[in-house]
Amino acid sequence: MTSFEQSLRHAEAEHQETIDNLIELFGLSDDTLSLEQEVETTLSKLAHEFLRDARASTDIELAELARAFSDSRIPVDSTQIDSYINSISTNLIAHSNNTASPRYIGHMTSALPYFVRPLSKLVTAINQNPVKMETAKSFSPHERQVIAMMHRLLFDLPEEFYDLHIHRNESTLGMMSSGGTEANMAALWCARNHKLGPEPGFEGVSREGINATLKHYGFDGAVIIGSELIHYSFDKAGDVLGIGGRNVVRVALDGENRIRLDELRRVVAECKERNLCVLAIIGVAGSTDCGAVDPLEQMAAIAREFGIHFHVDAAWGGALLFSKSHRDILAGIEKADTVTIDGHKQLYLPMGTGLLLIRNPELAKVVEKKANYVIRPGSQDLGKRTWSGSRPAMVLFFHAALNIIGLRGYELLIDEGIRKAKYLAEAVERRPDFELLTRPQMNIMTYRFIPQQLRAKAVSGLLSDDENRFINKVNERLQKAQRQAGKSFVSRTTSFNTRYGVHLPIVGLRAVLANPLTTQADIDAVLEDQLSIGERLSGPLSVTSDLR
Amino acid sequence: MTSFEQSLRHAEAEHQETIDNLIELFGLSDDTLSLEQEVETTLSKLAHEFLRDARASTDIELAELARAFSDSRIPVDSTQIDSYINSISTNLIAHSNNTASPRYIGHMTSALPYFVRPLSKLVTAINQNPVKMETAKSFSPHERQVIAMMHRLLFDLPEEFYDLHIHRNESTLGMMSSGGTEANMAALWCARNHKLGPEPGFEGVSREGINATLKHYGFDGAVIIGSELIHYSFDKAGDVLGIGGRNVVRVALDGENRIRLDELRRVVAECKERNLCVLAIIGVAGSTDCGAVDPLEQMAAIAREFGIHFHVDAAWGGALLFSKSHRDILAGIEKADTVTIDGHKQLYLPMGTGLLLIRNPELAKVVEKKANYVIRPGSQDLGKRTWSGSRPAMVLFFHAALNIIGLRGYELLIDEGIRKAKYLAEAVERRPDFELLTRPQMNIMTYRFIPQQLRAKAVSGLLSDDENRFINKVNERLQKAQRQAGKSFVSRTTSFNTRYGVHLPIVGLRAVLANPLTTQADIDAVLEDQLSIGERLSGPLSVTSDLR
Repeated sequence: MTSFEQSLRHAEAEHQETIDNLIELFGLSDDTLSLEQEVETTLSKLAHEFLRDARASTDIELAELARAFSDSRIPVDSTQIDSYINSISTNLIAHSNNTASPRYIGHMTSALPYFVRPLSKLVTAINQNPVKMETAKSFSPHERQVIAMMHRLLFDLPEEFYDLHIHRNESTLGMMSSGGTEANMAALWCARNHKLGPEPGFEGVSREGINATLKHYGFDGAVIIGSELIHYSFDKAGDVLGIGGRNVVRVALDGENRIRLDELRRVVAECKERNLCVLAIIGVAGSTDCGAVDPLEQMAAIAREFGIHFHVDAAWGGALLFSKSHRDILAGIEKADTVTIDGHKQLYLPMGTGLLLIRNPELAKVVEKKANYVIRPGSQDLGKRTWSGSRPAMVLFFHAALNIIGLRGYELLIDEGIRKAKYLAEAVERRPDFELLTRPQMNIMTYRFIPQQLRAKAVSGLLSDDENRFINKVNERLQKAQRQAGKSFVSRTTSFNTRYGVHLPIVGLRAVLANPLTTQADIDAVLEDQLSIGERLSGPLSVTSDLR
Repeated sequence: MTSFEQSLRHAEAEHQETIDNLIELFGLSDDTLSLEQEVETTLSKLAHEFLRDARASTDIELAELARAFSDSRIPVDSTQIDSYINSISTNLIAHSNNTASPRYIGHMTSALPYFVRPLSKLVTAINQNPVKMETAKSFSPHERQVIAMMHRLLFDLPEEFYDLHIHRNESTLGMMSSGGTEANMAALWCARNHKLGPEPGFEGVSREGINATLKHYGFDGAVIIGSELIHYSFDKAGDVLGIGGRNVVRVALDGENRIRLDELRRVVAECKERNLCVLAIIGVAGSTDCGAVDPLEQMAAIAREFGIHFHVDAAWGGALLFSKSHRDILAGIEKADTVTIDGHKQLYLPMGTGLLLIRNPELAKVVEKKANYVIRPGSQDLGKRTWSGSRPAMVLFFHAALNIIGLRGYELLIDEGIRKAKYLAEAVERRPDFELLTRPQMNIMTYRFIPQQLRAKAVSGLLSDDENRFINKVNERLQKAQRQAGKSFVSRTTSFNTRYGVHLPIVGLRAVLANPLTTQADIDAVLEDQLSIGERLSGPLSVTSDLR
């Protein structure tokens, strides 16, 4: 018996079974580690079977699923591990979405490289907390390195810059976050606190709050400006940061779903005229709904001209930096002040790997926090300038992937995704039963099914608004039916910026092509699924009377 | 060759090596899975060796460590997995902190139950994203269930309440978050948006921003009120939410480090008089620096009297709910509007498992967001009322632990931690070479080493301010030396609320007793380490001339 076991047994002799269980659970004895190995084998098998099943999901109804999770009592006694695994295997894992399936091409998920699976276990086992050096001694400089690598990929500043700042305590080249939403919010937090910073006799917005600060600087309000396609996390940021969702100003789009520069300039000027403080201009590099990329170079110039923080949301598109052939799609991104890139999107990392990159190493000082028990003044704790507090050391996934996939590997993955999106776009264009809604600027695109009775009109561009509304309903039902059937999956979105005019929302099927496992045959199969569902749904229907 | 391999090979014949590598990395062939198994075996061995080494850390200097992570270039070519693992094993894992070591009793980390390690792999493998149903079909109702279980443990509302709300789309019983900081910020976000909500003709703070909303409701400012010991995440929240750090008002403490109720009442009344909107009162249930618990029952009554949101930060202490013997320490917590509990603290889960519980199921509607491509109106997507956007399905750790450890298991773990803290406190009190600074209200406590030349004075309560400053320096150096030596670890903090008066900061050694592997012998050994370091450091020194 180890001393830990003795200690526990000593405690409460009456709870023998509970004590036995805890000793088994927490110990590092050979018994526990061989039990861990058994569980590992079982769960690996479960995971691999799940991944190898190419279905996007099962067809279970949500109500039935909910019934399996309807007990709100915590079990008093311990459940045996085998029976626990059996139960989640049947109820939970079996009905998860296979977000890695080659025919699940509807969201920003993909197959992941195999090494992230065992690596997860290591991250959990060593359980570092990068909020402070004392809980992440080696992971703190390691995280700084990874952030510098990504910073250099993007901003490509001179070698001496990185030699100086990579481990300089006063410098912050970026922040890890759990996702893109938090990276975007953190970027605007920095922008806001910088713009409305302290001056002699005044502590700035961080300490004084927005109300007092706007008054102090004589502004009537504060705004954030981006296109109509900026991610909804900017509405959240506007709300959270006290700016207000309605002060997240959305500028009209051009025909390619990019921000209209003349309109941007007009809105900026108008805000200045109305005495509103423009906290940031947001550029989109890969819009969530159709992968559109704003004219970043020109936006950066406007931001510079007016002295405004320029943030680029490249949560999706940032990975194009790895591709020599496609990097120019992001031209101008290197002039941004802050950039969001998600590891769990096109860097093929697991969920939870958001990243904000910050060009000026001094910027994040405007959000610095301290405490007596942690991140004391002068400490090298990363937590003093991050959005999160305690958090897992997800940076290890970045580090592993940058090394094991490498620049060339990422380049090929990106190029392949874009090639496949073109393939799908061309396939859709060739067919009268589908209509392309957005040509892919990278590897996201939208299109829709056209019911047989309307194909001739659609081809000739003669669809009435009512007919378009009918097609909307068909596509909405089609997407839901395809999702429910579970053989394949695309998502859907609604656009107000189509050839049919800004008054008419158009429902589109949305495909995201990033999974290296997705082949042209898979893409064809997804279309065939949609065609057969679409025909079945719309065949017997009349445009005027049904589906209203 | 699988079709996926054919597809990739077809792409770019010139990059054969890169293509081979990608096929190996992303495929699900037997070859890849057996490679995964090899990596799994290697990393498990590495993890287990790391965990079994009881040292708290190595004694490597930070500067040397930083040198190992100083290259900011992303490798062009792929690194072989073996050599990658070798490199992180030497540079990164070897110098991580063993936060699970029985003699690492300085932060809120512990040994974890073994099943979280293989479970991590499953979470990564299935890579669900609970932001929306389409990427987390079964995990969405599953997360709702786990949140309901924790809600019930805490608020203990009638069965019918849970039957009604557990899966009701309009109801939100809580939010998962990456950590306590985010849970606290999310709580205050809800409180702020509720207090300053919409009314006919006005959209409320969420849409209008703080500036316009305070004006609309005729307030001169907004504040949050808590004790001097509230966590620094509330400063962050004050900053982020646009309230301003200086408007996070800190109320004086009583002799037991709890908020003074008379002072709280006075401050609330004063804020009302000064026409400031009190957004929330914060109760602490387990202060980070010494585990103090505010008088929650009475605070709840004051909050109710004045119509103020009552948030309890039980990130650390919330787990006491599992203990019949100690649950009463938290009496009144069930009257809170929102409560933060961290899974990665006393629920023995990995980092990244923060949780906010919300009593009123309708409250979170004040933070709801929507988008066209996701969380559409009427959708059941969890992401419409969360702080985060995309995030990993960390809830599975909660679920597994609640089942496999069970109520009784948690109860025993909590009771044991409190028993060990008492043991340490008594050991410290018995010895003249140490002084107890805070008696543990749960399982965190502070104490300090007293150099030999001052022990008699310390015992008689005759230490001068200069002598106390000397002792501060000794303890600061002691803590750093113990940390650097790496055999054992406690953290340190600074208190202004000791018997020595509010003018004099007192440096304390801070011990957190939660690790089930920590025995009384370990506790004794930590004290012995400190004694020998302390004697060595302070022996030859003079109070008046040295260590200034």
